[in-house]
Parts: sequence; structure tokens; C-alpha cells
Amino acid sequence: MAAAYDNDNVFAKILRGEIPAHKVYEDDVALAIMDIMPRAEGHVLVIPKVPARNLLDIDPAALAALISRVQHVAKAAKDAFGADGLTLQQFNESAGGQVIFHLHFHILPRFEGVALRPPGTMADGEKLKAQAEKIRAALGPFAG
Amino acid sequence: MAAAYDNDNVFAKILRGEIPAHKVYEDDVALAIMDIMPRAEGHVLVIPKVPARNLLDIDPAALAALISRVQHVAKAAKDAFGADGLTLQQFNESAGGQVIFHLHFHILPRFEGVALRPPGTMADGEKLKAQAEKIRAALGPFAG
Repeated sequence: MAAAYDNDNVFAKILRGEIPAHKVYEDDVALAIMDIMPRAEGHVLVIPKVPARNLLDIDPAALAALISRVQHVAKAAKDAFGADGLTLQQFNESAGGQVIFHLHFHILPRFEGVALRPPGTMADGEKLKAQAEKIRAALGPFAG
Repeated sequence: MAAAYDNDNVFAKILRGEIPAHKVYEDDVALAIMDIMPRAEGHVLVIPKVPARNLLDIDPAALAALISRVQHVAKAAKDAFGADGLTLQQFNESAGGQVIFHLHFHILPRFEGVALRPPGTMADGEKLKAQAEKIRAALGPFAG
């Protein structure tokens, strides 16, 4: 039996506008924001607007709509930073690495020879703001 | 400019039946097989049938169809092994961690306190066969 969705998780609060975030992309399906503890330069999160805990409970149609936004933002994040590659991660439950219990995909721009940073270090807000602007500028029209 | 798709990658050969694999799930959209160098017990890969190099070049509609299969197989993999969680990974280009250049999602069943294994160790074929059977037995009807 899947665990229940908690309406007071941080991403639910961001979606309701109760907590600020550096927004990269938003439509009726998804919100993309900068990760405040980035493990790579330009680390972005893509979050569905539906209240889903993780991959295990999201409606398949909502997930299909979400992944199009993940792809859209991922391409822009790669272009914005001239990255050599991208790593996508998605964690389910604590054992799977999940910390905030609202489904999210991590998009990590990657460069040859540069390892992911260890987790847990807060980024400078101004820097995240500038990175969000850079990715927004690289977003083409959404064709998903 | 995205790199081209190479028809001779290992997953293309598996899709054409030129190389065997421990199959977990197959339909017109996707094939799921056991990873032969598992980083966790029950490590499964989900591969689209369309020739896509990675997240950067797959058609959005094909990606949407694929992620439903990822979810379907992920739930079964979790149930089959009684896992506490799941980690999803998807690598794009060498810098992003990609080794085989046909798009694939890694599904890693996770247990509390058990770290991912380092990459690169081949699993025993009989063990993979038994694990594939276990996941197949846990697959419900596909509703994506």
C-alpha cells in the first residue's frame, strides 16, 4: 500500500505560492525550479502540479504529460550552460533517495570530467536567479 | 546539434534479437530487461523500441508512451523484491553517464541502508533469469 500524499510538503507550498522559488518554466501541468542544493551547475527540478507523492502513485496520463516538460526543460538546461550531457534522477521513498514527498525529476547538466557535488550545500540565491534566467532564455516553444 | 543514432549499439541488437537478454516486459512501445551489471538487486532497464539515442532526441510522444512502461515495470520491480523504495536514473551522453547510446531508464529497487553497488560487475545469468521471472510474475495488467 502506497504512502499518502502530504499537502504540507515544500513543493506543495511552492506550488501554492507560499514559499518562493527560482522558476524556470511553468504551465498547467508542471513547474520547473532551481534546486536550492544543487549537485551540478544548473540543477533543475521538474514538478507536476497534481498532488503525487512519487512515481508509484501518479496517474499514468499525468506522468506522460510531465515527462514532456522534463524533456523540454532538460534540453534548455543543456543548451543554457553548454553542457556535454545530462543526468536525470528521480527518487521514490526514503530508501530510494527521496527527501521531499512530492514527485520531482532532477535534471543535472553535466560536463566531461566533472563529478556530481555531494548533497546538502545551499546555493547563493542570486546565482540561482541568474541560472534560472539563463535556462528560461534557452527554452524554445513547448512542442510536447 | 545532437549526435546521431548508432544502429549497432547493444540495445538495438537486443531489440533485433541478435543478442539475448533477460526480458521482463515487452509490448509495441518498450522492452524491459535485466541490467547485466546490476547496481542493485533487481536492476531493470526500460528501452523504447524507437531508435532514440537519449532524452535529447526522442520524439515527445514516444517518450510519453515510454514513461508509462517505466512506471509499470517500476511498480512490479518494487513489489517483486519487497523493496522499500526505487531510484530512477537516465543518462545522456558520456558526460551524463551514458554508456550504451540507445535511450534507457534504469529502475533500481532500493532497501533502507543498502547503498548502490559500484558499477561494472557482471551478474550471474541464472540469478538474472530468476529475477526477471519474479518481476514478470509481479506485473499487473498494463493500464498506462
